[in-house]
Amino acid sequence: MDLVTFGETLLRLSPPGQERLERATELEFRAAGAESNVAVNAGRLGADTAWLSKLPDSPLGRKVTATLRAQGTEPDVAWSETGRQGTYYLEQAGEPRGTNVVYDRANAAVTTATPDELATERVDAAEYFYTSGITPALSETLAETTAALLERATASETTTALDVNYRAKLWEPEEAREVLETLFPDVDVLIAAERDARHVLAHEGNAGEIGRGLADEFGFETVIVTLGADGALAVHDEDVYEQPAFEADTYDAVGTGDAFVGGFLARRIEGGDVRDALEWGAATAALKRTMPGDTALVTREEVEGVLAGGGAAINR
Amino acid sequence: MDLVTFGETLLRLSPPGQERLERATELEFRAAGAESNVAVNAGRLGADTAWLSKLPDSPLGRKVTATLRAQGTEPDVAWSETGRQGTYYLEQAGEPRGTNVVYDRANAAVTTATPDELATERVDAAEYFYTSGITPALSETLAETTAALLERATASETTTALDVNYRAKLWEPEEAREVLETLFPDVDVLIAAERDARHVLAHEGNAGEIGRGLADEFGFETVIVTLGADGALAVHDEDVYEQPAFEADTYDAVGTGDAFVGGFLARRIEGGDVRDALEWGAATAALKRTMPGDTALVTREEVEGVLAGGGAAINR
Amino acid sequence: MDLVTFGETLLRLSPPGQERLERATELEFRAAGAESNVAVNAGRLGADTAWLSKLPDSPLGRKVTATLRAQGTEPDVAWSETGRQGTYYLEQAGEPRGTNVVYDRANAAVTTATPDELATERVDAAEYFYTSGITPALSETLAETTAALLERATASETTTALDVNYRAKLWEPEEAREVLETLFPDVDVLIAAERDARHVLAHEGNAGEIGRGLADEFGFETVIVTLGADGALAVHDEDVYEQPAFEADTYDAVGTGDAFVGGFLARRIEGGDVRDALEWGAATAALKRTMPGDTALVTREEVEGVLAGGGAAINR
Amino acid sequence: MDLVTFGETLLRLSPPGQERLERATELEFRAAGAESNVAVNAGRLGADTAWLSKLPDSPLGRKVTATLRAQGTEPDVAWSETGRQGTYYLEQAGEPRGTNVVYDRANAAVTTATPDELATERVDAAEYFYTSGITPALSETLAETTAALLERATASETTTALDVNYRAKLWEPEEAREVLETLFPDVDVLIAAERDARHVLAHEGNAGEIGRGLADEFGFETVIVTLGADGALAVHDEDVYEQPAFEADTYDAVGTGDAFVGGFLARRIEGGDVRDALEWGAATAALKRTMPGDTALVTREEVEGVLAGGGAAINR
Amino acid sequence: MDLVTFGETLLRLSPPGQERLERATELEFRAAGAESNVAVNAGRLGADTAWLSKLPDSPLGRKVTATLRAQGTEPDVAWSETGRQGTYYLEQAGEPRGTNVVYDRANAAVTTATPDELATERVDAAEYFYTSGITPALSETLAETTAALLERATASETTTALDVNYRAKLWEPEEAREVLETLFPDVDVLIAAERDARHVLAHEGNAGEIGRGLADEFGFETVIVTLGADGALAVHDEDVYEQPAFEADTYDAVGTGDAFVGGFLARRIEGGDVRDALEWGAATAALKRTMPGDTALVTREEVEGVLAGGGAAINR
Amino acid sequence: MDLVTFGETLLRLSPPGQERLERATELEFRAAGAESNVAVNAGRLGADTAWLSKLPDSPLGRKVTATLRAQGTEPDVAWSETGRQGTYYLEQAGEPRGTNVVYDRANAAVTTATPDELATERVDAAEYFYTSGITPALSETLAETTAALLERATASETTTALDVNYRAKLWEPEEAREVLETLFPDVDVLIAAERDARHVLAHEGNAGEIGRGLADEFGFETVIVTLGADGALAVHDEDVYEQPAFEADTYDAVGTGDAFVGGFLARRIEGGDVRDALEWGAATAALKRTMPGDTALVTREEVEGVLAGGGAAINR
Repeated sequence: MDLVTFGETLLRLSPPGQERLERATELEFRAAGAESNVAVNAGRLGADTAWLSKLPDSPLGRKVTATLRAQGTEPDVAWSETGRQGTYYLEQAGEPRGTNVVYDRANAAVTTATPDELATERVDAAEYFYTSGITPALSETLAETTAALLERATASETTTALDVNYRAKLWEPEEAREVLETLFPDVDVLIAAERDARHVLAHEGNAGEIGRGLADEFGFETVIVTLGADGALAVHDEDVYEQPAFEADTYDAVGTGDAFVGGFLARRIEGGDVRDALEWGAATAALKRTMPGDTALVTREEVEGVLAGGGAAINR
Repeated sequence: MDLVTFGETLLRLSPPGQERLERATELEFRAAGAESNVAVNAGRLGADTAWLSKLPDSPLGRKVTATLRAQGTEPDVAWSETGRQGTYYLEQAGEPRGTNVVYDRANAAVTTATPDELATERVDAAEYFYTSGITPALSETLAETTAALLERATASETTTALDVNYRAKLWEPEEAREVLETLFPDVDVLIAAERDARHVLAHEGNAGEIGRGLADEFGFETVIVTLGADGALAVHDEDVYEQPAFEADTYDAVGTGDAFVGGFLARRIEGGDVRDALEWGAATAALKRTMPGDTALVTREEVEGVLAGGGAAINR
Repeated sequence: MDLVTFGETLLRLSPPGQERLERATELEFRAAGAESNVAVNAGRLGADTAWLSKLPDSPLGRKVTATLRAQGTEPDVAWSETGRQGTYYLEQAGEPRGTNVVYDRANAAVTTATPDELATERVDAAEYFYTSGITPALSETLAETTAALLERATASETTTALDVNYRAKLWEPEEAREVLETLFPDVDVLIAAERDARHVLAHEGNAGEIGRGLADEFGFETVIVTLGADGALAVHDEDVYEQPAFEADTYDAVGTGDAFVGGFLARRIEGGDVRDALEWGAATAALKRTMPGDTALVTREEVEGVLAGGGAAINR
Repeated sequence: MDLVTFGETLLRLSPPGQERLERATELEFRAAGAESNVAVNAGRLGADTAWLSKLPDSPLGRKVTATLRAQGTEPDVAWSETGRQGTYYLEQAGEPRGTNVVYDRANAAVTTATPDELATERVDAAEYFYTSGITPALSETLAETTAALLERATASETTTALDVNYRAKLWEPEEAREVLETLFPDVDVLIAAERDARHVLAHEGNAGEIGRGLADEFGFETVIVTLGADGALAVHDEDVYEQPAFEADTYDAVGTGDAFVGGFLARRIEGGDVRDALEWGAATAALKRTMPGDTALVTREEVEGVLAGGGAAINR
Repeated sequence: MDLVTFGETLLRLSPPGQERLERATELEFRAAGAESNVAVNAGRLGADTAWLSKLPDSPLGRKVTATLRAQGTEPDVAWSETGRQGTYYLEQAGEPRGTNVVYDRANAAVTTATPDELATERVDAAEYFYTSGITPALSETLAETTAALLERATASETTTALDVNYRAKLWEPEEAREVLETLFPDVDVLIAAERDARHVLAHEGNAGEIGRGLADEFGFETVIVTLGADGALAVHDEDVYEQPAFEADTYDAVGTGDAFVGGFLARRIEGGDVRDALEWGAATAALKRTMPGDTALVTREEVEGVLAGGGAAINR
Repeated sequence: MDLVTFGETLLRLSPPGQERLERATELEFRAAGAESNVAVNAGRLGADTAWLSKLPDSPLGRKVTATLRAQGTEPDVAWSETGRQGTYYLEQAGEPRGTNVVYDRANAAVTTATPDELATERVDAAEYFYTSGITPALSETLAETTAALLERATASETTTALDVNYRAKLWEPEEAREVLETLFPDVDVLIAAERDARHVLAHEGNAGEIGRGLADEFGFETVIVTLGADGALAVHDEDVYEQPAFEADTYDAVGTGDAFVGGFLARRIEGGDVRDALEWGAATAALKRTMPGDTALVTREEVEGVLAGGGAAINR
């Protein structure tokens, strides 16, 4: 297995056509979560991926696994008789309303997941292990389980990657920093939005300084600072690599960051260097924005097409 | 106010076209609950109705109140910063699959509702107060609040009605019986499906015997035993009234019982006798079955049309 | 041209899934009218057909002509700067609710149509001319125009057919009878539902007696009495022909009568005798019931298949 | 009651996805009208609002009241056995096609509404009364009723507001000016699009000069000149206040003006000064543009968020 | 692997709501084929299943694999640069129209599939191998490949099952018989609809006689004769087992036969005897009829529920 | 007949909402092809048009003719018992994904169309005959038939127009050039995208030089070079006319070129000069971009409105 991820996948309920939830009479029904998104995105580009989690043994839990399998990632889950299936309601909107997320994820089955319930042997055997800062925010148990899996990965020489992915609706910045810093010793690749690096991890300066500062403070092998429309920057082996974003007509922005990580890791896994992987991350992220749902349902050829400069507006 | 009801209203998420949840990509989005259904149904037929509850202050809670207001019932709710909006997933299906409900209602805001948060003065001033056996099943707090509201209604000479509405996914029969029996002294009108009367309330014999037995044991003014396709039977002032069901092409069976109760109460409120009210209940229930959603969005003219024997298959 | 028809075609707005208009958030959008239905239905079976009318010069009027052309009938209309496009709202429902029609057709452009605006030369040249009792009900002008077209057809030796099609929402039985009887001298083929024959045309007895009575009283060449689920009966040249209905799983019953007439006329036009044409009418009507919309979008092969006794439930 | 409005609410039928009416097979089904839009919009921001009108007693009229109640405004209507439910067909389109409205509102029930049919006591008791220049354009009766209600409001010291809202498909500029000028003596707050101020009210100069000129000529307490993408300007107590528009990603532009008025009045009602109210109007208008339908289904928090400068593109 | 199947999976395009293809403006989009249906159906009940085939390397081919993976079967396919993705258009309809299939499957990639392109080692290792009479009908190459795979399975002591599945739109009965009879020596379990047994395989008598006749003639270990609404009958080890069909409210009948086979094989694989497996087949088939699509997306609990006699119409 | 066109019309299957085909569960279903698009577009603006082709005698072929008739063009087709209905799958997307077309058109019935099967007498009698470079790319037979029809048109003094319309998924540039150059002697009006003129026809220089070069080399009466967002340029009688594109909010870009040609030819047919016709082409193309589907379902008034400079964003 090239990449194993661990985290929560939610059912996503969203009104079509930028309608408000209050007035909607039907909802689009998808499944999505940072860690399964990354597994799917990397899997699309050639990596052999699996996602570990715990789900309720119900049609809702099965909706999650069916969705992930359809997209090419192998779900390896503990089926639970207790605990809910987490959901989130998504109201897509342009400015100045902005897209709004209403989480309904408390007491999800996954919040009680312990290492002994999970297929941890997959972590040992994987080349990469990935999780996000959302996972330890969900429960104390999950914070402990996340720590245990990262430790185990480190012990097995599995490279670990963690995206800070700060969610203001889940916890406070201080609490997030405290918990995340306990995990950092077992993290090889850190991904952080510039905003999170400033407000949660309390690093300052320009993006390069932030990246170097994080790398120095915690000894990460690679630090990626994502800059939204300005692209991303990586610090690796003391070098700084800058990657502008590709222009994209945004249809659905949710999951852009996970697409970046998925593209980056997929390229690293197949041997690309950091500069190369940043390009793949940026191209995958741009493609993601053109489609609905949280995942970048793309092909290698499409990513390569973006890197080659694109082509006709209509390909026929 | 003619009728005040109290209970939980859920968001109802159901795949169109008898699709399975696992495979569905969109869901119909409605709001429904036994007590608000009864308020809506009675309101459609002329009663002035309100529904008391507690809801999260979120787009989801507002979806509930918008839906009820649209259907003509006044929601009077405590808005809460804590607690979820309960939901249920509904897979409609014919035999032998049968319609399946997946509840996701634990920790709903309403489960912490106490009398002092609710507009209890509306209960005092109402002619009828209605709740169902679902409400006390949801939490200990709600069991207490239900008891308090029924007591208060009794003290104010508001007639009280309670539908046993046993839900096997919420509690065991014994637990249900124990709690319900503590409420019965403050109940004037009891509605119970024959099956619930047998398995939950432990009454035996034919439907008439069950009805009489319940009336005798607990001193109800009126007992209605519903018999599904066989209609219903009422015991009132020692007399037994039988009411066959009207034949109906069923489009959506959910809410049929609430339509019966809504029609029955609406007619009682405007002075109809028990026999008359049973007919209105049965006609409203039959109309309900022809439409999607949990409520009978009908007119008095339509109910009267059913009672008058129906007319042309196409009315033009 | 084998068949020319004249009348009003409405836009049909109907909630999907047996939803109520009050609660619907989307409507199916079609175009339909008795006379254009008959033209379409006959056209599908091989007749060369046209439909005469008057429409507002607007996207709504063009929706009507686009729909008819798509279904193979040539609309030949007077485009008007004044007058509305008539519509009807259709709530489909099973028993006991029944399907309900809400007409919104007052002041339609067609209500002012006079013979000089219409392509009356097509009536002269046609083998058959058809209209229904709805047309003269719509306005005094239309009653006069209907009379004029029937006269003109008679003068040109075009066979004329008229379906009584009584609409209780448009006029009273007495008024209908009075107007229709002025038209009957120019009608060769009369079609009447048994109910209309009784309540509007005031004929009594069994269906055969009604048919004979009408033929005798007004000298029709052919009288067809339609009997709903019991089929139809024709009186022609003193003979009575009975035709049972073919069993059908009804998806949408609206337009069944027009399908019968379309099938009947199509077969007569190509030389079928009355018995033969009755069978074609009944088969077309049965096929109509299996599909949405007011028209029988069928093929000759499908009609022949019904007459041959049907085949596999799944044809593959 | 803080705000009472009077006018016509139409059913809105629009093809999804910028399809043409001619080719559409389904239509979105909403209810909307300038005066009920304003009541809904102000109601969302905290005002207690009602809408007066006359509607046909039919599923179509009930669709209107259900929609308004769902959005939080109380409809107080005269139910009529005669007269239609007005509708409008809306083809949304970008440039150069532009959005096109096809009105089908002639002979609506409301066109015969007289003061004695309406709940005019609500006008007396309200803080604000609002109507638009569309209402008197619909019939002579409505012009008289509008005048009578404005007079009554003035007599009761209810502040009156009128939006010119010129509709070229309803009347000519000269006719509009003549009628509107008879109403102006009873109007306290005039809202006019700059274009209407020029072409209908025949005022010239820049927007400030137009506003001052109108205030001077008719003695309005407040004149608001709306400037489309350039925002709005108010003249009040001799002072001129300018308000730029907030940038918005437009999903549906219809109802932007009503959102401005609703936001403005809501803020005035709760004691905001003109400058403050202009900001609320502009923010509500910008939010409106991000959602489908004619109303701004927003919260106070969202308006305050716009005024505070907005936040993350995805709020999670 | 418990069960490996081989055959073609098509994209299924069907108008919603029993609309005709000619008039449809949208189509439901699924993937389905007899052999993958059987793999999915058996997989749902606990078997470990894979499906072998050849697909075009395109979004259409990927739609097929995504669909199968979502439903729990592993597709192991040869990706092809040439050859189409087969499709079929499905018009669902009640009687007398009947459901109609329009195949568009000529020149599909799979028609050129040879054993060396396929993961034939999976056939060797499987407990059961299944294909249908559709596969050899598609091309000469496929007839040869089917023969080769059956031979290989026999050589590996993999039990082989073949469903005659005669398709009149693909070949003539005589041609079918000739080809199928060459395959029969390597078939252990034959499934044949009674009609196909008569018209294609030319066996006569009652169902039991047909079953025995086939078993005798070709030496099958098990022969199942399916009887539509009358259930099925198995001849096994000289014994005849009869199994009535479970009553079902049919939502979509397509795939019923494959559900029967899937249920039968799943039970045989886990050690059930023939009688037991027939019951599982019948229950799975009945459940299939209640849902859209070609596969029975069911659980073991649901099948067991049918066998236990069903329960409440609404399970809550 | 003013304009006769000849070519293939495909069924167009596209996921709604920029979804990927792999994940789509429903598809929009339309019919479109360059030559029928041009006929429809010109027909909308007043020309009397017909489209010649060959179609399978199936619901799919009838979907094509129904669609064209609905849009006002007369299909005159050879109905075939053999050959498929061609389709194409369309994934709409913004940059950098771009819109992608998956053709499934091999072995379409039309690929075997010979002149004797077609209503070639319509070509003789028409004012204009139009086809595109797609048609000869589809089969050798069609290349011959295209040549024969162009010759016949020339012999009948029917003006001929051909749009190069190079499709990289159908043939190589060299092959295209070779075939097209054999057709050019019978072409009066050539339309070529600048890119095709360079890469396929191997002309160089700026657009004007390309246009002049083509006119000189092949003796075309008119050469139009289309320049995408930069508009178009015509060389006619030695003069060069430049036409900028009108700005358009693009909803669906497919068919823009055909809209240009349709507008151009319609104006030429009614006597407009080349400059005038270029304006009509550009305006029709801009309008096309605002709506879904391949055709410009517009009115003359709308085209004239664009030429007059547009108007209000909302026309009411």
